[in-house]
Formats: sequence, C-alpha cells, structure tokens
Amino acid sequence: MRIAAKLVLRSWVAVVLLTLTPGLAISAAPSGPPSEKPNIVYILVDNWGWGDIGIQGGATPTPRIDAFAAEGLRMTNFNVQNQCTPTRSAIHTGRLPIRSGTQKVPAPGEPQGLSPWEYTLAELLSDSGYATALYGKWHLGNQRGRLPTDQGYDEWYGIRESAMEASYTATPQFDPEVFEAPQVWQGVRGSESTPVKPFDLEARAVLDAEVVAKTVGFIRRQAKAGAPFYVLAAFSQIHPPYLPHPDFAGRSGAGNYPDIRMQLDGDVGRILDALDAAGVADNTLVILTGDNAAGGPSPEWPGDGGSNKPWRGGLSTGYEGGLRTPGMVRWPGRVPSGRVSDEIFSDLDWYPTLANFVGAKARIPADRPVDGVDQSAFVSGKQENSNREYVVNYVGNRVFSVKWRTLKVHFYTAEGTFSPIVEHTFPQVYDIENDPGESRELWAADGFAHLWVTKPVMEILGRIGASMREFPNLKPGQDFQGYE
Amino acid sequence: MRIAAKLVLRSWVAVVLLTLTPGLAISAAPSGPPSEKPNIVYILVDNWGWGDIGIQGGATPTPRIDAFAAEGLRMTNFNVQNQCTPTRSAIHTGRLPIRSGTQKVPAPGEPQGLSPWEYTLAELLSDSGYATALYGKWHLGNQRGRLPTDQGYDEWYGIRESAMEASYTATPQFDPEVFEAPQVWQGVRGSESTPVKPFDLEARAVLDAEVVAKTVGFIRRQAKAGAPFYVLAAFSQIHPPYLPHPDFAGRSGAGNYPDIRMQLDGDVGRILDALDAAGVADNTLVILTGDNAAGGPSPEWPGDGGSNKPWRGGLSTGYEGGLRTPGMVRWPGRVPSGRVSDEIFSDLDWYPTLANFVGAKARIPADRPVDGVDQSAFVSGKQENSNREYVVNYVGNRVFSVKWRTLKVHFYTAEGTFSPIVEHTFPQVYDIENDPGESRELWAADGFAHLWVTKPVMEILGRIGASMREFPNLKPGQDFQGYE
Repeated sequence: MRIAAKLVLRSWVAVVLLTLTPGLAISAAPSGPPSEKPNIVYILVDNWGWGDIGIQGGATPTPRIDAFAAEGLRMTNFNVQNQCTPTRSAIHTGRLPIRSGTQKVPAPGEPQGLSPWEYTLAELLSDSGYATALYGKWHLGNQRGRLPTDQGYDEWYGIRESAMEASYTATPQFDPEVFEAPQVWQGVRGSESTPVKPFDLEARAVLDAEVVAKTVGFIRRQAKAGAPFYVLAAFSQIHPPYLPHPDFAGRSGAGNYPDIRMQLDGDVGRILDALDAAGVADNTLVILTGDNAAGGPSPEWPGDGGSNKPWRGGLSTGYEGGLRTPGMVRWPGRVPSGRVSDEIFSDLDWYPTLANFVGAKARIPADRPVDGVDQSAFVSGKQENSNREYVVNYVGNRVFSVKWRTLKVHFYTAEGTFSPIVEHTFPQVYDIENDPGESRELWAADGFAHLWVTKPVMEILGRIGASMREFPNLKPGQDFQGYE
Repeated sequence: MRIAAKLVLRSWVAVVLLTLTPGLAISAAPSGPPSEKPNIVYILVDNWGWGDIGIQGGATPTPRIDAFAAEGLRMTNFNVQNQCTPTRSAIHTGRLPIRSGTQKVPAPGEPQGLSPWEYTLAELLSDSGYATALYGKWHLGNQRGRLPTDQGYDEWYGIRESAMEASYTATPQFDPEVFEAPQVWQGVRGSESTPVKPFDLEARAVLDAEVVAKTVGFIRRQAKAGAPFYVLAAFSQIHPPYLPHPDFAGRSGAGNYPDIRMQLDGDVGRILDALDAAGVADNTLVILTGDNAAGGPSPEWPGDGGSNKPWRGGLSTGYEGGLRTPGMVRWPGRVPSGRVSDEIFSDLDWYPTLANFVGAKARIPADRPVDGVDQSAFVSGKQENSNREYVVNYVGNRVFSVKWRTLKVHFYTAEGTFSPIVEHTFPQVYDIENDPGESRELWAADGFAHLWVTKPVMEILGRIGASMREFPNLKPGQDFQGYE
C-alpha cells in the first residue's frame, strides 16, 4: 500500500508555538467561534494497528468502522504516544507525557498516575458545562485520588489499569496478600470509587459489552437532559488476554483476534446507533482512534497481535507502525465527509482543538507547556494542511525518533515491543514518503545527503529541552510540581 | 600482514604525567632546545583507512605517499580519536575532546564548535611568530566566532563542516528556509569570514585541488617572507560524497574511491614539491595522518569506503581499525629517515610535541588538563620508545575501549560506523600483538587469566575521571567553563 504523504511547505508555526504560551498558541489557527457546544464521544481502542481495519487493508472486515470513516475525516497520519498510559495522558492534557510523569506503562508497584495537578480534558469540558463520563480502561492512576472521578469525570465504570489485570489471579503464585485482587470499579464524582466485582477472565470477556451499554445509557440520559455531554468509551480490546465476548467467540472462524476485531466493529456501531436513536448524531463530534499500535504480528507477541501494515514496527517502537493508529473524526456539517488526509496530527492536538471547538480556549492552562496544537481549522476543512509538521516519539524517557515533514530521524530503535533497544552512534534517517516501510536508511545510503534534517529536528528537541528546564517534568507519581 | 608490536616495559611516565601540570609534563622527555623554528605542514586526510596506502597493503598504488613515508618516521600505531571533529579538536588542543565538548561529530542543529576559550595549536604557533593558515575542512564550529580565523589562523579557505554538506541541496526535501545552503568560505584574521560560492557537488569535486593550490601559494609566499609558517592542509577527501576531481575521474579504472586515492597521492606530492621548489623542505616538518579510520568496506557504508585492514572495525568503532590511521612525519636531519615504529602515538601528542620542537613549551596552558604527551624525543629518534603506553578511545560520551601496551580492553563495542552499540557486562580483552584482528576474546577464552589488565586500565580511567571532576568538561557549544 502506497501512502501519499504530501510535501508540506509552510512556516514554523508548530515549532514556534511551543515557546509561546499555550493561550497564544492556539489562537494561531482561528476557526471562528463554534455556533454551539457539540457533544463529544471519544471511542478509544486499545492496541489498535493501523492495518487492523478493513479500509486500511485489515484482514477482518470492519464495515461499521469503514462506513464511519467515510462520514468524516480519516487521518492516515494520526500519531499516538507509544504506549497505553502515555497516550491517555496526552489526550487528557495535551502535554507530552514525560512532562506529567506518565511516559510509560507503569509496572505494578511503580509510582504512577496522572497528577491531580494536571487540568484534564474532562475537567476542561466539565468546567464548560459538560456532563462527563468514562467507561472502560483508565490506566492513569490506580489509587484513591487518581481515578477518573478525581480528574473531571462525573462518573466512571471500568478498570483502573489494563485488561492484563484479568489474568493475575489465575497464576499459581498469585498471593492476594501481596497484590490486591483486581476488580471492576465504579464511581461518581464526590464519592470514593468502589469495587463492583472481581476482574477475572470471565469479566474481561464481557467488559467491552458493559462499556457499550453504559455509554449508550449515558447518551440516552444526557440527550434527554439537554446539556452537552462528553464520554470516553475506552475499550479494553484489542489487548491480551485476547478473550472475545461469548457472543463473538468463533464468529470469524479465524481465531480470537479476528473475533475481537468483529466484536469491536459491532461495539462501535452500537454506540453510533445510540447517537442516531437519541437524535443527537448531528450535534455530536465523534472521535475514533487507537491508543497505540498493535503489538504484532511478531514472534514475541502472544496470539495474532494485530497488524500495523504497511508500516514497520509496532507498539513501543519508533517506527511508523508504532506512531500511527487509525484516526478518524465525524461531526456532521462541521467536518467535511469523505475526506482523507495524510497531514501530521498528534493525539496531543485533541486537547486544544476540542477546547476551541467548545469555545473554551481560555480554559487552557497558561502556567505550563501545552504541546498540542490547535487543529480546528484543519479538522473542519477550512485549512488543507495541519498546523503540525513534526512528532517527537518518546519511548519511556528516551526520544526514539522524530518525524519531521516527510523525513524521520531515529536515535534509538527497537524492532518490536519486546525487542532490545539499540542505540545508534549516528542517527538513522528515513524518507517515509518514498519508503513508507522505513527499509532504506538514508544517512549512510545516500552519502550523508540528508544529514541536514537533523538541524530542524535538533531545534525542536532544543526547544522542548528548554521548556523542560523552565517547567521541570513531574516525576512518576508526583502530586504536583515541587513535591517529591 | 603481521604487525610487530613490541612489549613496552617502562615506567608510568605517561600516566603519571596526566596528574602533573602540562608544563612539568613535557619536561620529562627533553630533546634539547631546537636550533631553529621549523615550518610545519600538517596534511590531514579525511576518513583514511590504515590500509588505504600502498605501503600498508592498499589496493591503489600511492607512490608519493610511500616515498614520503620512507623519508621520515612511519608510525604503524598512530592513534586518532574516533570521528572527524574529535580528532581535529585533539590536534588543536592536545586535550581529550570530551573535555572540550567536541567528543562527536555534531548533527546539524546541535550545539557545536571548539570554544574560543581553548588555546589552539594555531594560536600557540601564531603567538610564537608563525604565519598560520588552514585550507579545507574545519569541522570545529560552523558559526561566527568559531571559525579558523577566530582560533589562531591568519587565513582560511574551505568548508565549515564536512564534505557531506555538498549533497544537502540536492535532496528533494531540502528547504533553504530551514537550513542555510552550504557554502565555501574564506576569511582572514580580524574580519568576518564570508561565503565564496555554493558548496555543491561540483564544488565538492574540486575543493581539494583548491586546498593544494592555496597551500602551495601560502608556502611560496611565506618562504619568500622568511618567517616560519604553519599550514593545515585539511583535505575533504576521502569522504562521501565520493566525487574525484575531473582530472582524476576514471584514472584508476576501478571506481571513484580508487580514483580519489590516486588524486590524494598526487595532491600530497604537489605540496611536497612546493616545499622543494621554495627551498624550504629541509627546514619543514611535514606531518601526514588521517583524522579517523575509513568507514568501509561495510554493507552499511556507501561505496568502496576504504580499507582498515588488517585491523578489525573502522570509523567510530573501538577496534584497532578505528584507532589507527596512516601516520608519518618527515623533518630532514631531525627525524631519522626510513624508521618504522609500532610504538603507541596519539593525535593528542602533536600539541606538546610541536610546542617543544618550536621552543614554545612555556606556552602550553597550565590552567587545564592537557592529555597529550611530549613525543619529541621519540619522534626525533633520541628515544626508541614513545612516552605513551595507552590510548583511551571515546565514542561520543562513552569509553569504548582502552589500549594498554599490547593489550586492549573493550567496554562497549560496535562492529561498524552505523552498527548498534553493544554494552558488555564484563569487559572484553584482546592481545593485539598476537591477535591484531581482535578475533579471540581473552577474558573468557583464557579462563580469566588476563583479568588483571583491567587494573592499570581502571587506574588510567580513574585518573582521567578525577581530573574531570577537578576541571569540568565543557558542554558541546559551551563558550567557556562555567557558562551554560
């Protein structure tokens, strides 16, 4: 598959903005005041490969998702952070996760969670009059004070961490005195969250059906109430353990993973149907993306593991297969339908973009760096190009790669999620327009002709570094700046 | 080819000196006051493999270079820093490049350049009454205030960085608003350097012919003027892009790389001829070395890439193929002719050695560590052995390997310039006297019998570490100690 990535010639808007205050930053691409506050439904799929959907070459048909993509903007260059926690952090803050101490999936026992000091998308929308809810996977904090209802959500139901929790108690060595047996949780704002039931393999298989039911219920309730609403439907699929819902088990005839792909397509469809049934589809902005790439197929990854084709690499790598997931947005009448764009968009950008769409730009904190750029003009089709020409790809504390326009610079590489991290004395350079599979390293191959590309890349990294010296990064688990 | 490396048994002169003041250090090997100030011509070849010359097994005949080697001292164990910038820094300061923030080739956009605070060889010679000039490649700073005429040279002509600059504008993604189109520059001391013409592929092919012409002109002028002179003829060859001068294109019948080897041999010859023609050959000390090893032959390296045979590794590796380049020095009547030595010599050593030869030992700064050792007694044949028994091989910020007498200890390894960096839990040990290809790792192979060698190596590294705590290293691009 050949991806037509356009050569983007434009000013240094995105780069320059980084050094300005966030408030100023988002004013650079005005899209006019929104006529109304749209409802916002963000459907977030776990470990979703770019090639895991039919319209992008997927092995399993995904008719509902494909149809949805055609109703709005499909972004073929939608970029995420490299793991579950960092992307969820980026969506909620518009800030590079390393600033928030959320730069990796925490191993159980490690200090973790988004600091209450962060001003989340849910808080911003709640403060703008939105009813807010999260159903499904959180992964931004597993302790009191760091759950969704502590971070701007009116209600939540789901798991604090990840689907893999469901397997813990089945291990023979499991000791509940050492590790609290995982639970499905629920909570409403102002009260402590409480466990609902054990989160085991049986609960794992039906969790996303509950996510759909809760989301549909929330849509119905809020449509009647009349106030704008925001819901994050954070599916626990497609993540190990790969257990489809009983209704979908065996449906594909090709194994658990394809069964789950079909389940996911149906789950997305049921949420879209609920919007239609409630009569709010026209005034609802629906976003559908992955949180990070698929892990497979790879010898090291259990099961099918999904497909990031045609890109190289996947989950937790710095290659395009790790950066890109499906990314689409629908907003009837405001986002032109049938548009496909290979412009660079980052999960960081939703925060300022949605703030602009709901008329809440002034709520974006001015006391901290916000790395997302306002893409409202791009998303709404008033502007052909995006306001972003680079993506900095961190894996943990390291900058693995930087994508700049159609070129890519790698400082560290890993071939797969569990592969060794390789450091390179000289950065590697790829031309992802003409070599989407990142198979031909240019620095050496072309006699160093592309070496100049490190200049804009180093300038980007230099500006980020300077802002981190001015605004020190939070340590993982840290409560607020200055606190140890 | 078998290299007879002698087992050197002598005191800890070189090691101990590191902790003494440089002024005291060079007095340890007195060679007597020089009778006159010799002219100094340093011909520095880019990316020059140990095996790239005829007399060391090269595939292309190099009759002029071979003849030159026979007229003085040929050092088969001449050691460089591991990349272009570090070696140029070492030659100019006598200091480990990591002390100067010049420990690697900076990627474009990275802070770079030798600090004006450094007291360069050119400044030392200039202050000693020498006319000074640099023609060709600088690579020690690409901005105002860090060009050759800011660092002790009366005049210069050439390129600020490296030959690869010539390819930049030919890449389809090149954007002159992002990256200033490379130029050939010239300057005289006291004025701003100015661009002469675009440095493109055409200019690249003829640059070294210009270097020769400028060097020959300088020799003629200075010979008439009567004052001692120092010129650094810093060839841009043999470096990608491999474009020979039109006069040499096709000459070898074996490709661009062999053509350039022939061109280089002729270029060296023309400079030597100019010394004869000007009647100053007898009073001129001529040094001919590489700045670092060749990159190839390697699957990752474009073109022929040169030969580091019989040694393992090359450019930016810690193996002997990365440490050694051709190294020879001629000074009629002062350096015995026809001598070949496998004593350890470092590019760091030129600084104090030349200072001694020109009677300027007192000019060596006493306020900073100088790692080079005075080799004047060795070079002039008054002493069989060199005053150095180790080489610490940095790649970037890491000590990859330490050569100590005839043994070698590796902490990190990389097989080629672009190969992954591998860290070793236990250091690797090789006997380079009996195993010049570093093919048989001793630590494991001989049941740990050579383990003791890490003691002297750790003592060396400990002393360097202590001196770095006392005299903190400059950061890349830093202006002077204490400046951020």
